[in-house]
Amino acid sequence: MAETLAAPLIAADLDSWLVERRRSSVFEVERIPFGDMVGWHFEPVTGNLVHESGKFFAVEGLHVRSDYGPVREWQQPIILQPEFGILGILVKRVGGVLHCLMQAKMEPGNVNDLQLSPTVQATRSNYTRVHRGQGTRYLDYFVAPSRGKVLVDVLQSEQGVWFYRKRNRNMIVEVGEDVQAEEDFRWLPLDEVWRLLRVDNLVNMDARSVLSCLPVAVPDWMDTAAPGGDSFGDAVRRSLRGEGRPHRGGAHILNWFTQVKTAYHTSVNRIPLAEVSGWYRTDKEISHQDGKYFSVLAVAVRTSNREVARWTQPLIAPSGQGVAAFVGKRIDGVLHVLAHARVEPGFVDVVELAPTVLCNPSNYRDIPLSGWPPFLHDVLTADPGKVRFSAVLSEEGGRFHHAQTRYMLIEAGQDEYTQVPPNFEWMTLRQLTGLLRHSHYLNVQARSLVACLNAAG
Amino acid sequence: MAETLAAPLIAADLDSWLVERRRSSVFEVERIPFGDMVGWHFEPVTGNLVHESGKFFAVEGLHVRSDYGPVREWQQPIILQPEFGILGILVKRVGGVLHCLMQAKMEPGNVNDLQLSPTVQATRSNYTRVHRGQGTRYLDYFVAPSRGKVLVDVLQSEQGVWFYRKRNRNMIVEVGEDVQAEEDFRWLPLDEVWRLLRVDNLVNMDARSVLSCLPVAVPDWMDTAAPGGDSFGDAVRRSLRGEGRPHRGGAHILNWFTQVKTAYHTSVNRIPLAEVSGWYRTDKEISHQDGKYFSVLAVAVRTSNREVARWTQPLIAPSGQGVAAFVGKRIDGVLHVLAHARVEPGFVDVVELAPTVLCNPSNYRDIPLSGWPPFLHDVLTADPGKVRFSAVLSEEGGRFHHAQTRYMLIEAGQDEYTQVPPNFEWMTLRQLTGLLRHSHYLNVQARSLVACLNAAG
Repeated sequence: MAETLAAPLIAADLDSWLVERRRSSVFEVERIPFGDMVGWHFEPVTGNLVHESGKFFAVEGLHVRSDYGPVREWQQPIILQPEFGILGILVKRVGGVLHCLMQAKMEPGNVNDLQLSPTVQATRSNYTRVHRGQGTRYLDYFVAPSRGKVLVDVLQSEQGVWFYRKRNRNMIVEVGEDVQAEEDFRWLPLDEVWRLLRVDNLVNMDARSVLSCLPVAVPDWMDTAAPGGDSFGDAVRRSLRGEGRPHRGGAHILNWFTQVKTAYHTSVNRIPLAEVSGWYRTDKEISHQDGKYFSVLAVAVRTSNREVARWTQPLIAPSGQGVAAFVGKRIDGVLHVLAHARVEPGFVDVVELAPTVLCNPSNYRDIPLSGWPPFLHDVLTADPGKVRFSAVLSEEGGRFHHAQTRYMLIEAGQDEYTQVPPNFEWMTLRQLTGLLRHSHYLNVQARSLVACLNAAG
Repeated sequence: MAETLAAPLIAADLDSWLVERRRSSVFEVERIPFGDMVGWHFEPVTGNLVHESGKFFAVEGLHVRSDYGPVREWQQPIILQPEFGILGILVKRVGGVLHCLMQAKMEPGNVNDLQLSPTVQATRSNYTRVHRGQGTRYLDYFVAPSRGKVLVDVLQSEQGVWFYRKRNRNMIVEVGEDVQAEEDFRWLPLDEVWRLLRVDNLVNMDARSVLSCLPVAVPDWMDTAAPGGDSFGDAVRRSLRGEGRPHRGGAHILNWFTQVKTAYHTSVNRIPLAEVSGWYRTDKEISHQDGKYFSVLAVAVRTSNREVARWTQPLIAPSGQGVAAFVGKRIDGVLHVLAHARVEPGFVDVVELAPTVLCNPSNYRDIPLSGWPPFLHDVLTADPGKVRFSAVLSEEGGRFHHAQTRYMLIEAGQDEYTQVPPNFEWMTLRQLTGLLRHSHYLNVQARSLVACLNAAG
């Protein structure tokens, strides 16, 4: 199917389904004082924000000391969620075309209530029913013994600046049998899912994370494309397939990554939230004294289509819109992206691969250009003719309040960026995505951008 | 070269070189009271055993709660060594034959003083010279920019029951240029290195760990063998090459591993050594009240061939000889081994793949058979005709006192063990060793046995 950027990104029937889903449910989110939360409270001595069940998650403090980056020591609130949840997408081949069972799901932190989510998006508390709600639909396919064929099952990290060691199972399960799409669900052909990534705030973070693993799990889907052309999209597909010679061999890439991991010493200690310095708490928020980074706040939710009809919970609200961008270029004709081996204090293994640029630019508003992260200025001022993908997408609406990030793919010329800082390395898309089978390699924003690569023109 | 088990395992000239190296140096190790250690002391409040520099390592306490295994909660002393060391072997092709530069190195915990070690075996404290000794020889090849070609560089765990999150860089670097073997070093052909693994307490733990990665790094070395025969060794080589159909696909193996990882909840908290319950401290040792598991003790060392001529240090002394065994069998003609996804509290990611059996049998002397770990009794009473490899090898002599483990490969019939407990899975050698490129998969005893596979007859 020939398809141009001018075509509508959302097919009319999908659009009307989304509108209908949004209308058919009550979903009201209201900011409330911490004191109005039910089941949540600040522990007397530690000041940690916890749920009375000891489940779900908690907000505690972190003390970080590191010889990486310009800031060597700081304290901050952090979300603790030691349980492993399941993010799973059910896929099925229909007439040779791979389809994904996507869910229209409302989350309290979403700017637009409803986004497209994986088939299953469940914390362990959810699916073991700590909150005594309804069961999680389609869960049977994702727990052993599965009713389908498990193509992907890998623990992947989430934001290491907001979460302490949070990881979820990213799963893809293929079914042969017919599986009925229930009310909030819809089977979508894969091409359409990729296209929907271009729509602002539609495909949610969990879906993007799971979708990033799909080309690795089902390599034959790519063989239907004919990447003989010279477009960025063609170069993406060739690089994903592993065509052409990488700038650096696989052993070199792993050597570089291990070197960065061992070059820095980062000590991360959990501390009571009450002892976190530089932050203050009012009855409605916990914020940094400079107004930067993020705040912790509380919301009340009333809904008609979730396991539980009413609840209150804390959310993390970033102080501004983030930017996550891979700079790519063709080296001897093969598309490479510039990966950043980045320290985030909440990572289990401290360093993971991130996009070339990943930050909240508003945190640098009072800092001179020389103190900005590498490549940030270039990305913010990139020639629109070089921008191959750009969309504002949301971080997880179950934990984050209006957390939006501009995701970008920018193509540079072969002669640009020939010298890069030691924590950066050029990798082909095959090299990058080959690491997705394993934990501890690609951070969540890098995974989002890997999914978006499939949507690049 | 035709070679039989009756051939001498150590060539005469190598043997005389080892004897000569042992004779040429003074190396005296003496147990001393803790109070006679220099630079080491128990901290006043915590009781932690630390070095005055804050470097090297420390002995603290651990409190473990887990829903895995028969014992759900315990406390124990544990070694903390947050630095990343380098374990590196230099390799070179001479006349088409791969050679390894091995070191004859004395360690205070070795039962026999001297063992064959990697070219470089250095903690960060060593190679940044905290102890103000001589520099580490050949180190230039292993730090960036390397003078050779880095084939392997991966952080691998060490004993998660004795170390808290200890990992070392396992590196293999190939040189093209001639590199002179200095006094304590010797270039050995790879076939000879494999054969030496059959000699009790000769190839040390660090060397075995690095050597396990070699077949993955240099796959072409295997092509010189002609694995058409029916011997166990031939089946090993075919399975390492990836010939034949695995019992379970790669996606299933990763699914199973993630499932085990997420099925258990293990909480691991560091506590002061003084608060560890069930253990007692005298002036010469810290031991468990039942005389099981291990003791912490102190030694004084006098030597003529190390960076520092005299020192004192603590060591961990296990209470008995360990056993580490892979049970293997041919499934439809393809050799598989039975891997155990095992919780060790000191692992960064809590679960790694271990041999089928890994334990200290003396810890079970007063426990009825029904309480023994799976397969332990079978391994201890295995028909000698099914034992394909058996040697007593040492754990790292720089931290462990006389820590010996019997490493075994046992071949079962295809019809045996068709039902295994959920934490066990059959894997081909290609599936198992393919994971060695990455951290957090194979524990140190599994890696030792992977090296020993190359020595199996």
